[in-house]
Amino acid sequence: MRAMAKAPVLTPQADDFPRWYQDLISKAELADNGPVRGTMVIRPYGYGLWERMQRELDARIKEAGAQNAYFPLLIPQSYLTREAEHVEGFAPELAVVTHGGGKELEEPAVVRPTSETIVNEYFSKWVQSYRDLPLLVNQWANVVRWEMRPRVFLRTTEFLWQEGHTAHATYEEARDYAARIHRDVYADFMVNVLAVDVTAGRKTPAERFAGAINTLTLEAMMGDGKALQMATSHELGQNFARAFHTQYLSKEGTQELVWQTSWGSTTRMIGALVMSHGDDHGLRVPPRLAAVQAVVLAVKGDDAVLAEVRRIGDTLRAAGVRVHVDDRTDIPFGRRAVDWELKGVPIRVEVGPRDLENGTAVLVRRIPGGKEPVRIDALASLLPASLEEDQALLLRQSRERRQSRTSDVTTAEEAVEAAASGGWARIPWAALGPEGEARLAERAATVRCLVAEDGSVPDTDDAPGTIAVVARAY
Amino acid sequence: MRAMAKAPVLTPQADDFPRWYQDLISKAELADNGPVRGTMVIRPYGYGLWERMQRELDARIKEAGAQNAYFPLLIPQSYLTREAEHVEGFAPELAVVTHGGGKELEEPAVVRPTSETIVNEYFSKWVQSYRDLPLLVNQWANVVRWEMRPRVFLRTTEFLWQEGHTAHATYEEARDYAARIHRDVYADFMVNVLAVDVTAGRKTPAERFAGAINTLTLEAMMGDGKALQMATSHELGQNFARAFHTQYLSKEGTQELVWQTSWGSTTRMIGALVMSHGDDHGLRVPPRLAAVQAVVLAVKGDDAVLAEVRRIGDTLRAAGVRVHVDDRTDIPFGRRAVDWELKGVPIRVEVGPRDLENGTAVLVRRIPGGKEPVRIDALASLLPASLEEDQALLLRQSRERRQSRTSDVTTAEEAVEAAASGGWARIPWAALGPEGEARLAERAATVRCLVAEDGSVPDTDDAPGTIAVVARAY
Repeated sequence: MRAMAKAPVLTPQADDFPRWYQDLISKAELADNGPVRGTMVIRPYGYGLWERMQRELDARIKEAGAQNAYFPLLIPQSYLTREAEHVEGFAPELAVVTHGGGKELEEPAVVRPTSETIVNEYFSKWVQSYRDLPLLVNQWANVVRWEMRPRVFLRTTEFLWQEGHTAHATYEEARDYAARIHRDVYADFMVNVLAVDVTAGRKTPAERFAGAINTLTLEAMMGDGKALQMATSHELGQNFARAFHTQYLSKEGTQELVWQTSWGSTTRMIGALVMSHGDDHGLRVPPRLAAVQAVVLAVKGDDAVLAEVRRIGDTLRAAGVRVHVDDRTDIPFGRRAVDWELKGVPIRVEVGPRDLENGTAVLVRRIPGGKEPVRIDALASLLPASLEEDQALLLRQSRERRQSRTSDVTTAEEAVEAAASGGWARIPWAALGPEGEARLAERAATVRCLVAEDGSVPDTDDAPGTIAVVARAY
Repeated sequence: MRAMAKAPVLTPQADDFPRWYQDLISKAELADNGPVRGTMVIRPYGYGLWERMQRELDARIKEAGAQNAYFPLLIPQSYLTREAEHVEGFAPELAVVTHGGGKELEEPAVVRPTSETIVNEYFSKWVQSYRDLPLLVNQWANVVRWEMRPRVFLRTTEFLWQEGHTAHATYEEARDYAARIHRDVYADFMVNVLAVDVTAGRKTPAERFAGAINTLTLEAMMGDGKALQMATSHELGQNFARAFHTQYLSKEGTQELVWQTSWGSTTRMIGALVMSHGDDHGLRVPPRLAAVQAVVLAVKGDDAVLAEVRRIGDTLRAAGVRVHVDDRTDIPFGRRAVDWELKGVPIRVEVGPRDLENGTAVLVRRIPGGKEPVRIDALASLLPASLEEDQALLLRQSRERRQSRTSDVTTAEEAVEAAASGGWARIPWAALGPEGEARLAERAATVRCLVAEDGSVPDTDDAPGTIAVVARAY
């Protein structure tokens, strides 16, 4: 008789969502807390998710014409002060290197919290003529922002990200490029790979990036109804260009300041994945993201079973499925089954001696749930379709959650109540306004973004009919 | 009449090799110096080389069974002091964060110079039983080592690298894994992708990594006859395991310390590429590494030419060549040709109106040199073979340089002279010994590695017949 996979030891979501999250991160071996407060160790299974995210995003970033580069980690402290809003926004979060090579430094260096300043120092050298524009650069890097209330993946003192930085000849080109990244890189990746429903909007002036003239955001609803900011794309106007003299000789022979954008997405997306798709049994990884889409498990270690799981592995691999064969039969089957469930691998194919006699395997589907015996020779044709169904189901569940838990309201009070009860509220921005927005903060709610009535992103802060989306947020 | 590609403005190697190197790095747009002393900005073309290196190495690392993970940048200062030799080796190079979030930290954090200490803090938690071994982890990261004599790519205060960290049940397994990485990851990549001849050996006790019981190294001869350490793989014995209590329950039920390895390769390889294959016209990129193997240039901007270069691009792409089409005809052709030559793209296909009439293009081969007209319809069959020839030629040139400039000597004095005149010396280690080695340093030479007479890596420091390779080094 085969050991049954027991329910994993996670605090149920309904009992304590934050504790469920911490349990899952730990038991699925995604990450540990680091020794310096707020830092984290990303374990191999968690980092594997990040590598897949990087690959998908990187391909889209290159498709949008940007090239990767690398700017230094250490930035002279004086650079940060050149753009007034920028330094005000980041000063409280800085980590400062005061000693290097056994001596006190003449000028302290900050560990980059973001790279607009140092990037502009070099853009101002590289950009000479209109022929050098647009300049489209991205970097994959670590950044440090001292975090007072850390939570692994969501708010960490050090995190990994990509940050794009571009310079353009005109306002319109910069605006369109920020919008293109927002749509073709971020939204496309999140919807079609992460299977996370996102609401695209613009930040209110109070919530903009420090130094930007406009911030586009993608907001997603987590399993507890709170919002998570998934990625942002900023129009920087000429603020940094002015501070760093980033200018070009136009076709007409005049010196002009460039127009700029910056945009980023971070390891926080791993947290979003967990809180969007996780359930009381663990994570559920969307098949298009999963490094392992199907695991073939040998229930027992006899030779015929081991030979068969390897053969099935090869067959599925040939059918284009990313497969892992689990033949570690010195570890009890039940423990391994629970582990794969926790880790959220979409499909398990379990093969024991009895199955072999029947020419069948047990197919366990993590995403819709359920297990059934299937003929081994049908697996290769069955699995690719099942994986596509699973991918679509996760996105549908994410979308339905957001739809069912979002309400239209007309007063700030109602918006606060909707947010407090684990949902989102949509309220006319004209009815709320910056004063109403300021009062939301006292009640733990924020305006996540402004959207147009038709769901598009408004062109200005005060376009008629603009809706504010209000929620509690991570 | 077509503009001819003029000789680029590089200081000739023979006049001043270090200046030639700096000129090339700058004019080929590989990197700039950063604002904090010793740091660097890796520009898109230089970073593209690094991305290709990463991809090739990462595939080999995964093939060797290691998985990627990420450990924090900031390490509590106290961790560094736990392994006595380790702290002695790294203390003079540390960058120290004393302030975070606007306050002085209770315990300063160092910016990682390498991660053995923090890795062991976590390995000691993750490893419980023999079933958890071997534990094979790698990370791609930045590290900071305060550099007194910086030179871009070769010695920089911040550099990018991969660092592998593993734990094994026995001494033999650890020793064999360090050797496997050295051979199947590093040497294989350097010879077969970078086309750089490498000498594999072990470091003398004086040159070992701080905290290791054995360091394996790959040394390459640069264009000026000096040596560059390309990558190292260390046996750490139980030194860090003892300091961090990294132990496991054996099959026999006893607690045992693990045996460990660590191994790294860095952005310095970009410098090695330049100094191995560069010439007075610029860089020469080995085809297997090149992101762009062939560039198809439109000499003039007429419609027929533009249509044809795009068509040739498609044809070559279909033949498996990594192609870039340069149709920026608003920039003079001569300037673009010089730029591609500086950047070392292996093959240029130049198409002008006259060529088009004849059904020919001018084929310029950067690696062997030379240009000739070829029929356009022959390009797709010609180029893949040319690229393989070019790859082999670079390796042959690298090997012949090392062979022709290495001499067998019997005294320390002769070794120093050989090194001073831009070559390597091979001297019996028994004749030199640690005392002789110490005296080399006064004459700017070092023992790069110990090798066996048959070219293999000796198993011990004092194996009979061991040869010391002596050179000046970067």
